[in-house]
Amino acid sequence: MSSVIDPLLDQHVSPQWRGLLGALAAEFEDQLGHDELRQLMARVGARFAASHPLQPCKSTDDLAVMLNAQWRAMQWGYVELADEHEFLRITHYGAPLRAFGGGALAWAPAFLQGSYQEWLNALGAADLSVVQAREPDDDFAIEFRLGRGAG
Amino acid sequence: MSSVIDPLLDQHVSPQWRGLLGALAAEFEDQLGHDELRQLMARVGARFAASHPLQPCKSTDDLAVMLNAQWRAMQWGYVELADEHEFLRITHYGAPLRAFGGGALAWAPAFLQGSYQEWLNALGAADLSVVQAREPDDDFAIEFRLGRGAG
Amino acid sequence: MSSVIDPLLDQHVSPQWRGLLGALAAEFEDQLGHDELRQLMARVGARFAASHPLQPCKSTDDLAVMLNAQWRAMQWGYVELADEHEFLRITHYGAPLRAFGGGALAWAPAFLQGSYQEWLNALGAADLSVVQAREPDDDFAIEFRLGRGAG
Amino acid sequence: MSSVIDPLLDQHVSPQWRGLLGALAAEFEDQLGHDELRQLMARVGARFAASHPLQPCKSTDDLAVMLNAQWRAMQWGYVELADEHEFLRITHYGAPLRAFGGGALAWAPAFLQGSYQEWLNALGAADLSVVQAREPDDDFAIEFRLGRGAG
Repeated sequence: MSSVIDPLLDQHVSPQWRGLLGALAAEFEDQLGHDELRQLMARVGARFAASHPLQPCKSTDDLAVMLNAQWRAMQWGYVELADEHEFLRITHYGAPLRAFGGGALAWAPAFLQGSYQEWLNALGAADLSVVQAREPDDDFAIEFRLGRGAG
Repeated sequence: MSSVIDPLLDQHVSPQWRGLLGALAAEFEDQLGHDELRQLMARVGARFAASHPLQPCKSTDDLAVMLNAQWRAMQWGYVELADEHEFLRITHYGAPLRAFGGGALAWAPAFLQGSYQEWLNALGAADLSVVQAREPDDDFAIEFRLGRGAG
Repeated sequence: MSSVIDPLLDQHVSPQWRGLLGALAAEFEDQLGHDELRQLMARVGARFAASHPLQPCKSTDDLAVMLNAQWRAMQWGYVELADEHEFLRITHYGAPLRAFGGGALAWAPAFLQGSYQEWLNALGAADLSVVQAREPDDDFAIEFRLGRGAG
Repeated sequence: MSSVIDPLLDQHVSPQWRGLLGALAAEFEDQLGHDELRQLMARVGARFAASHPLQPCKSTDDLAVMLNAQWRAMQWGYVELADEHEFLRITHYGAPLRAFGGGALAWAPAFLQGSYQEWLNALGAADLSVVQAREPDDDFAIEFRLGRGAG
């Protein structure tokens, strides 16, 4: 991530919730282990996606358009989808996860993971799993993979 | 609350966090009882206040000015303080708690309660307790009391 | 307007544009007379409404719903419509006009006036005029009237 | 500008003012020529900077810190300063100028130019001019130069 993008991502986070979310994250990190935190955030993501259903769609491009309509409405950045041989690559740019503080990059992306899993389940991909490709270097781009071998 | 204030409060909530916070609240309400939820939110409020310390202050008016500087910076509404005989009345207007959904009025105000308790502890009122006056009718005005008999 | 509503309206104005709009308003007030300024803002309002057309509607209640969908999407407050004998009363609450600074209450409401005139023209009320009822006391509620005698 | 940055910049513009500013820009473009529009925006920028004065500063790095404190508070992006042999290069990233619509890249940057000129005048550089390096390709990065030969 360039040194210019970082202050732009910073300004992108709503000042209204940074204080509460930072304190909530500190409380979570004290009370819960890493795996429990990721499971919690994945369940929250699944609930979020279930209450924001997508229209049916016919192609990967269609799906990207519908996902981005959801994220754009809430100023949550941008997703790119790419069909690879073995899996669907899902790269999410500019999610405002830094609202949860510096340590949250280890667990807050599970909210996105749970959201994508739930949306893709509802579209009929229930036998496929969304997994995070790796711990990201920063919060600019977070990569997930949907696939059979993925889980 | 007048029918005109309600849509203004609605527009006051950042669209960026309404989706996640609503899903988080639903997960909390499924997993935790009412008292646990209030205790969680009070701890989160205490953490928030501890990381946003007030300047020393000399009077109730001073205190109101400093508290409102905190809330204004994060678009969290407005507080009025009133010295009663037995207690300090703390009335918070326009906190964006509806981001947590319709059921949250029963527990989300504990975030404010925990914040005020922590700030007042730090100012030397550690032997006094902040309690919520009653369950509010709506999210426009939420009343707390600081006092000896309050706890 | 109560003393509590005022800080809430203040927090409602986007910090992103207050600086530029305040400077623009000061420049306008130096360069243009009161009537020119109102005409300019009314033309800007008409352009805005023309590029944000309403669906056809059958009743005053319908119309209020559609107008509020426009204003809600941009966090511009809330409108109430009331059929009086001689005119339609249009009361707009919570428009973020204070972004233009303290003197703007004399001319910035013409943006709303121009918007309502254009929308009502498009719905077939082109022979009726929207006029501002009077200079408002504050920016909480601004009243317009649509009628034959109104112009 | 990468295809990923563009939607992020889009989400960065406050929805509250996009409608009014787009209509205002269309009105300006109809009424004023390109040079008049740039002069207007430069005067507005100068007024803005005059009402948001900087602290005294000792170095280019100091100056960058103070300028960025101003821009950050209003979510107006980020500035980088670079001392070249002949001039000071001022590169502004992520200003929300697209709120004025697609044609505004030709004139809206004069707001930034006027702001930088005024701030630098106040710091004692009144015999130097801020000029825009060239019409930018997009609104991600806009470059200005402060120098003797610059004007």
